[in-house]
Amino acid sequence: MKNSSIGIGLMGLGIIGGQVARVLIGKADMLAEQAGCSLVLRKIKVLPVDLDRPLARELPADLLTTDDDEFFHEPGIDIIVEAIGGESPAQEYLKRAITSGRYVVSSNKEVIAKHGAELQALAQQHAVGLRYEASVGGGIPLIAPFKYDLVANEITGIYAIINGTTNYILTRMAREGIDFPVALESAQELGYAEANPENDIEGIDANYKLAIMASLAFQTVVKPEDIYREGISRIGSRDFRYARELGFAIKLLAIAKRADDSIEVRVHPVLIPEDSLLAKVDGVYNGILVEGDLIDKVLFYGQGAGPLATSSAVVADVVASAQDITFGVGNRLKWKPEAGRRIKPMAEIETQYYLRLSCADRPGVLAQISKILGDNLISIASAIQKEADEAAQTAEIVLTTHPSPEKAMQQALHQLEQLEVVKEISNFIRVEEI
Amino acid sequence: MKNSSIGIGLMGLGIIGGQVARVLIGKADMLAEQAGCSLVLRKIKVLPVDLDRPLARELPADLLTTDDDEFFHEPGIDIIVEAIGGESPAQEYLKRAITSGRYVVSSNKEVIAKHGAELQALAQQHAVGLRYEASVGGGIPLIAPFKYDLVANEITGIYAIINGTTNYILTRMAREGIDFPVALESAQELGYAEANPENDIEGIDANYKLAIMASLAFQTVVKPEDIYREGISRIGSRDFRYARELGFAIKLLAIAKRADDSIEVRVHPVLIPEDSLLAKVDGVYNGILVEGDLIDKVLFYGQGAGPLATSSAVVADVVASAQDITFGVGNRLKWKPEAGRRIKPMAEIETQYYLRLSCADRPGVLAQISKILGDNLISIASAIQKEADEAAQTAEIVLTTHPSPEKAMQQALHQLEQLEVVKEISNFIRVEEI
Repeated sequence: MKNSSIGIGLMGLGIIGGQVARVLIGKADMLAEQAGCSLVLRKIKVLPVDLDRPLARELPADLLTTDDDEFFHEPGIDIIVEAIGGESPAQEYLKRAITSGRYVVSSNKEVIAKHGAELQALAQQHAVGLRYEASVGGGIPLIAPFKYDLVANEITGIYAIINGTTNYILTRMAREGIDFPVALESAQELGYAEANPENDIEGIDANYKLAIMASLAFQTVVKPEDIYREGISRIGSRDFRYARELGFAIKLLAIAKRADDSIEVRVHPVLIPEDSLLAKVDGVYNGILVEGDLIDKVLFYGQGAGPLATSSAVVADVVASAQDITFGVGNRLKWKPEAGRRIKPMAEIETQYYLRLSCADRPGVLAQISKILGDNLISIASAIQKEADEAAQTAEIVLTTHPSPEKAMQQALHQLEQLEVVKEISNFIRVEEI
Repeated sequence: MKNSSIGIGLMGLGIIGGQVARVLIGKADMLAEQAGCSLVLRKIKVLPVDLDRPLARELPADLLTTDDDEFFHEPGIDIIVEAIGGESPAQEYLKRAITSGRYVVSSNKEVIAKHGAELQALAQQHAVGLRYEASVGGGIPLIAPFKYDLVANEITGIYAIINGTTNYILTRMAREGIDFPVALESAQELGYAEANPENDIEGIDANYKLAIMASLAFQTVVKPEDIYREGISRIGSRDFRYARELGFAIKLLAIAKRADDSIEVRVHPVLIPEDSLLAKVDGVYNGILVEGDLIDKVLFYGQGAGPLATSSAVVADVVASAQDITFGVGNRLKWKPEAGRRIKPMAEIETQYYLRLSCADRPGVLAQISKILGDNLISIASAIQKEADEAAQTAEIVLTTHPSPEKAMQQALHQLEQLEVVKEISNFIRVEEI
């Protein structure tokens, strides 16, 4: 046992950083028992604007600094917790923390998704720990399972509802039959969506989280830009109605699958069977289904965001880091960039499809559509002609297909658009039988 | 790094032990990468009867021994995996493994539930690791979350479907409207229940698992005999019908709750709202809901048993032990028996109740029943008179109550039994609004 007291430096005193500070101070006795040593918050790096926060005024003034150098030169800091968020300057701070020999805990999904490999290599070189449990799924253990609990498995698939905002919007749409803009506005009013909601509704946040999970699960490097991504804004209330009639729910899923040395990684809306457990993950909750050769399926469910849940993960990482420091353990993971796996282009994936078409309301239309699908070797699983709009002389046709290559489907969609009887391809959503 | 190769001794070559051997041998390269050192299976302690198993005949003969002393004296064994099951001689083997300085991994819920505290103290004394992830929930990470991932939380509640056999039987009863003996027999035919099913259907298996989880979650010592226990054999098909009408599912739950320094620990059938996620945990699957002050609720779901899932947990523990040995980390947890918490007697708990009574089919019966409940300060939430049996001149009355002390309820039940109009208290099931 080298130390009976471990010093902590905290970067950021916003919603997450503030809550981390509260837990470290308020639960100091309990955490000391768990860690086997006391955890002492020695310095907090804040922005000038943070100094006006109520918490900042409660804390001893000499605990706070707005100066980078003062923070990094503070003696007795063994662990640096980064709770700033965003790519820069967080990335530079993390590098400086690691190269100065500190163990690092981060809750920053963007930096870890974009620079995790590089940071992990740096941490290994400097023999310090790098932990980021809070970057994915808030208080739900997700990083630890991939690093430790499931290591005996070959992970074959991840199917994750990993963004609370979009799941809240989709749940409201499913339950109330409202359209996307209405649900989004309500989510914004209630504080579940930001004023600029792009990061959530376009799947960017889910994309970062999938990059982190897939990199760990498949022991490779998946960058955010490697992941195919579609948001939820084009889902309509009709899609929910038809999906329900067909026995499906609609969720924004982050999907990673492995077959041999290739992987597929994608974030997009998906129809899933309504009796699957993931279909019951509603509201702001997250649900992450992991498939492996030994475990079959394991599902993790909980609050994927929020200051309390996130602080649970950050502080657990601090305790684990403190134990490692006490026991003289450096970096636990070996970075193996050579284990890179090929990422399939979308054209190569194969899945089922749901198709909603606005067509001329006259005989023979379905035959023309079926022919194009058949010519592309796509077989139809179900076809229903839905309500007709008599004024516009159009009818809605809803189709589902058996598993087909994405490439064939895209070609068929292109050909369907050319058909005179097809007024509009109203929607096109992938289907996963999980 | 002290070792580049870690030696493993395996005790038991039954269903679990055999699968562990298969994974250690078949995945040796992958596990070496994960552990940072090679994991070499050096000796397997078997019973004479195991020597006839196909796997035993595939393995080199000198890897197997039926002799205890030969096994324990084998040089180069750093980790001993116990996959024997049952209390004795597993308990003695584990003690011998620890006192001989080996790190220990066990999948044995009975020994850990009954003797975990003592074994942990011994492991701490000898500065070796003691791990038992596989003892609860098969491949679902459950021990690690309590030890590491959720340490920043004050755990306030555990609600667990933790026995696959009973959950399979209850699921069949719920779906098919069959009675318990029929469902049990079918489960036995399909191999989901043992010929002697007592351990599962009387809640003994769930009891062991709850003792292990509650001890970790509340940092105390909960012994199996501290836990109140009822099995599922008295649940009838009618209970499922009435529960469904009232919006509830019926599950065998292992429950642990904490209030201040008291805890309550109990295993019994429970009515839970049918829209709760636990109500969707069907068949042989397990679902464990953990409540904490920071995480709110986290749910873990998966296969709670079976050789593949169990081997996933055992081998993850072996990898973690190997990393600790390599880094020179002894026992990570401090055993704090002084942190004992008072276990509430059942009379002190407070919950809601479902009551099914067979009564005389005449006016005024409900008034008499209501009076007794009212006299005991138990307020009725719903009361329905169900179908009458004209020949026997009886009618069935189904009641639910608001939260009431168990002591008052037991007294009311005693008084109801004395009523001339009450022919039988057909069932009495607790209700939890989770």
